[in-house]
Amino acid sequence: MRYELYYWPSIPGRGEFVRLALEQAGLDYVDVCREPATQGYGVPAMMRALAGEMGSGPAFAPPILRSGSLVIAQTANILLYVGERHGLGPKNDAGRYRVHQMQLTIADFVKEVHDVHHPLSANLYYEDQRNEALRAAREFVRARLPKYLDHFEAVLESNERGPRNLVGGRLSYADLSAFQMMEGLNYAFPRAMARRRRKYPLLLALRDYVAKLPRIAEYLASDRRLPFNEAGIFRHYPELDT
Amino acid sequence: MRYELYYWPSIPGRGEFVRLALEQAGLDYVDVCREPATQGYGVPAMMRALAGEMGSGPAFAPPILRSGSLVIAQTANILLYVGERHGLGPKNDAGRYRVHQMQLTIADFVKEVHDVHHPLSANLYYEDQRNEALRAAREFVRARLPKYLDHFEAVLESNERGPRNLVGGRLSYADLSAFQMMEGLNYAFPRAMARRRRKYPLLLALRDYVAKLPRIAEYLASDRRLPFNEAGIFRHYPELDT
Repeated sequence: MRYELYYWPSIPGRGEFVRLALEQAGLDYVDVCREPATQGYGVPAMMRALAGEMGSGPAFAPPILRSGSLVIAQTANILLYVGERHGLGPKNDAGRYRVHQMQLTIADFVKEVHDVHHPLSANLYYEDQRNEALRAAREFVRARLPKYLDHFEAVLESNERGPRNLVGGRLSYADLSAFQMMEGLNYAFPRAMARRRRKYPLLLALRDYVAKLPRIAEYLASDRRLPFNEAGIFRHYPELDT
Repeated sequence: MRYELYYWPSIPGRGEFVRLALEQAGLDYVDVCREPATQGYGVPAMMRALAGEMGSGPAFAPPILRSGSLVIAQTANILLYVGERHGLGPKNDAGRYRVHQMQLTIADFVKEVHDVHHPLSANLYYEDQRNEALRAAREFVRARLPKYLDHFEAVLESNERGPRNLVGGRLSYADLSAFQMMEGLNYAFPRAMARRRRKYPLLLALRDYVAKLPRIAEYLASDRRLPFNEAGIFRHYPELDT
């Protein structure tokens, strides 16, 4: 069974959290928008998927994962499915819900990171809300960035199975997402992150551990991995890296 | 088994989505922060829960639901649990993930509603970002509010089992949350919503259908139901209701 991932073709964005899980699980998938529209793929195919033309009703936004008649949107929801189906998380209830909790907190954090450069509206250009973004960035770097990182560091520290994983003693989709979160933050806020490196040894170790997983290392070196850029969630605007 | 819900005692907030599910499922629960701190309840008990002192590691924010040794945070995650355990959602995979997708899209919408009055940072007062909120509100009412409502109306319209529920032919936790979303929008943006009433007959019918469910009707009339106010997510600032 081949999975179909529908996401914008030129940014890592939220689709990247799904890609990392598909890659680590060793699944066969097609990154639909990066294949030719002339063959039925491309962004037009994603627009049809969003409109619900695959038979399961509309979705608000990508990413969307399709597997036969199963069509799933919302990043954390897709990861819940991939995690349950392909062993990227604990089997027991306590672990399953704990991993999903971590993922949803990462999703909240990612939304806040995005809103630093789009504080007024996702419908306006950055240039039209740059002054507001400067104020938002000050508060983000001062208060929200450390609040979230402190939280995840404490989660690792309190894990009874050891600080390698966010939950339990095995890799989960939330660990993969935490890697992407750290990569994105290092890209978007290199100065703010460098200043805080010593406070987050466990998060940095988690980042390194995931980067060295053989399948992830192979993926990161491939051209399937999209670089961060200034059209995505994690943008490097030096003026916001206070 | 008695559930414990940990959430702020004076706002409906995100906790209300959980309360509606617990009430509709007919579950026994204690709203911990609304019980006396002198008896081990109250906000101090919630602070201990957030710090992870109940044995399952820290949580970033309330609500938290506890059931014996199971401690779950993140609204949509709690609802996933209650829905699976107590029949507030479909049993089959397609339905389960579809309901969760709806819930996560409601969560995204609720976050955007909150950010209208807090565009720069949750750490600053409304009064310190009022001018920015005025601009954010214009974009929200013009673009985002109709985009989300159009989506949910289209979801209802495309439901093959009929437009009463978001997914399938039975009540789910996402239907209950859609009710609360509509109630909150009507409270916060009465003029913008009144102007659009005719565009959303199915959403308004869903709101009415949930309000008349016997257990929900009884709950709404009780003092367990907290009124909306200007410390919560859905705030009525007339200047933002453009």
